[in-house]
Amino acid sequence: MPSPSHPIILTGDRPTGALHLGHYVGSLRNRVELQHTHRQYVLLADSQALTDNADDPGKVRRNVVEVAIDYLAVGIDPAISTICLQSALPALAELTLLYLNFVSVTRLERNPTIKDEIQARAFGRDIPAGFLCYPAAQAADITAFKATVVPVGEDQSPIIEQTNELVRRLNRQIGYTLLPEARALIPATGRLPGVDGRAKMSKSQGNAIPLSASDAEIEGVVQRMYTDPNHLRASDPGQVEGNVVFTYLDAFDPDAEAVAELKAHYRRGGLGDMALKRRLTGILQAIVAPIRERRAALSADPDTIIDILRAGAKRGREVTERTKTEVIDGLGLFRL
Amino acid sequence: MPSPSHPIILTGDRPTGALHLGHYVGSLRNRVELQHTHRQYVLLADSQALTDNADDPGKVRRNVVEVAIDYLAVGIDPAISTICLQSALPALAELTLLYLNFVSVTRLERNPTIKDEIQARAFGRDIPAGFLCYPAAQAADITAFKATVVPVGEDQSPIIEQTNELVRRLNRQIGYTLLPEARALIPATGRLPGVDGRAKMSKSQGNAIPLSASDAEIEGVVQRMYTDPNHLRASDPGQVEGNVVFTYLDAFDPDAEAVAELKAHYRRGGLGDMALKRRLTGILQAIVAPIRERRAALSADPDTIIDILRAGAKRGREVTERTKTEVIDGLGLFRL
Repeated sequence: MPSPSHPIILTGDRPTGALHLGHYVGSLRNRVELQHTHRQYVLLADSQALTDNADDPGKVRRNVVEVAIDYLAVGIDPAISTICLQSALPALAELTLLYLNFVSVTRLERNPTIKDEIQARAFGRDIPAGFLCYPAAQAADITAFKATVVPVGEDQSPIIEQTNELVRRLNRQIGYTLLPEARALIPATGRLPGVDGRAKMSKSQGNAIPLSASDAEIEGVVQRMYTDPNHLRASDPGQVEGNVVFTYLDAFDPDAEAVAELKAHYRRGGLGDMALKRRLTGILQAIVAPIRERRAALSADPDTIIDILRAGAKRGREVTERTKTEVIDGLGLFRL
Repeated sequence: MPSPSHPIILTGDRPTGALHLGHYVGSLRNRVELQHTHRQYVLLADSQALTDNADDPGKVRRNVVEVAIDYLAVGIDPAISTICLQSALPALAELTLLYLNFVSVTRLERNPTIKDEIQARAFGRDIPAGFLCYPAAQAADITAFKATVVPVGEDQSPIIEQTNELVRRLNRQIGYTLLPEARALIPATGRLPGVDGRAKMSKSQGNAIPLSASDAEIEGVVQRMYTDPNHLRASDPGQVEGNVVFTYLDAFDPDAEAVAELKAHYRRGGLGDMALKRRLTGILQAIVAPIRERRAALSADPDTIIDILRAGAKRGREVTERTKTEVIDGLGLFRL
């Protein structure tokens, strides 16, 4: 059980789809470790998910419980991690609105993450105001929990920079260091490519392995996995770089030494794709099977999920309301 | 006491300075009437006041109680009107953030009120994001109370239009008319000019008569009031148009017939400025004296003011939380 001296970590996901092995390798399994050495808050960012899903709120609603089940199934323990539903913590909205007064429109527009995502989402000039404002909302999330560690993908680190800018601005006006600065924790394992070799595993692109995948699904997906197109016979030398099967072995095979040997063997020839794929299939099945089984058990008991979300929201409210009060008093605002 | 069948009116002020006779004639005295025929919510918009006062929150803090005292002193009755502190109603912040997903940045930038105020405040490109977003915050305020009548100055009517645009957008997605559209109630009496003849009475311009003004202050201010610079002797014909004393008599003298006669007399000559100013002085003193006395009594009893604000916040929270829940359920969002 983490003690008050442990650093505070804030992590989470936008509940817009069930989580998959990309999330598992990039963040979920780290959270299962980090929860023992950090006070960990896991935010189900349903409000943020609406910033680009306002026309389909049902997608967000349906996935709140699904993602909560994913969390529990991978081993995030609600006794030591706090799973919080963002929309259940009003202080986050209140701090967001307050922080928006301390950041200019041009500063938000200059945020590289916002710039990139505006392009990726093809909003053009019709960007929803909530989307433009979300760096302030993330600053509210991070500071409300007084998190000092925030695991993010490399593309998200400008959000942390902007949070720290706001933190310094607020602390300067408050007159002392009420809010801590946070640092981005970039995961050691880079982003897992899709099973088709595309840069990103994504449910919407159909190249993801969900945490509920059956053994047969995993076997089928690995069978179709991209290897080295020039590696026609097992005896041919093969290329390891860009070979998705090896990328996955690097990410999931617990025996790094064995993987190194396999790479050498593959390079000099004599190692067939089928043997490799069998190995990967077995490894992925071994990871997914217990998660899938826990998912099934949890899905059969929705009341327990709701109870866990309620308990997490209660703990989250205590923390975020306290910070809100401190910010209000620190800035010398009226408090009834 | 207004009944549930009475229309709901939302009105209020940004607590950035004590109120003055300009507020009295333009809105406060109307509220004292309207509270008998409407369910009236009076919003102390402290959160909105921060959108352009983030570097001086103390100004907002100090004026919350001052403006509440002004309300009570002019006769807004907390037994039939609900005085709500904006920052004490978290649902307003939550609805604001939600609504920001339903309005584009360009739509906010096109709002004429925002455009004008950006210019007037010389923000340039460095406009605080909170200021750009405030039409969404006003839409949240108006809809949270389900107000159908919103008294505004003529320059504020685009805010009501934008609110109604959002209302239609949300109702369309919800599938039924959950939120009512609102109409702007433009006061019959136009804006009161400053005592110096400038277009607007404003504390910061030093041309206002505060509701705490003493008899001597009122006399002094009226003595210095701008009349007709060509009306040198009482026997000369004088000009009524642009003559601030007559503008004030039009606004405050309960005897419109007498004022019409005075105008005719002034035009044909034989009516001195001193006589006119004595009349106006007496009228203003008669209006301000009881307000000033009630202000003094109320100021001596800050606990009562806080109690009234707390009771109003409690009533306001009930209403706004209910609307928030209806919007969440109407849009099909997750609710814990």
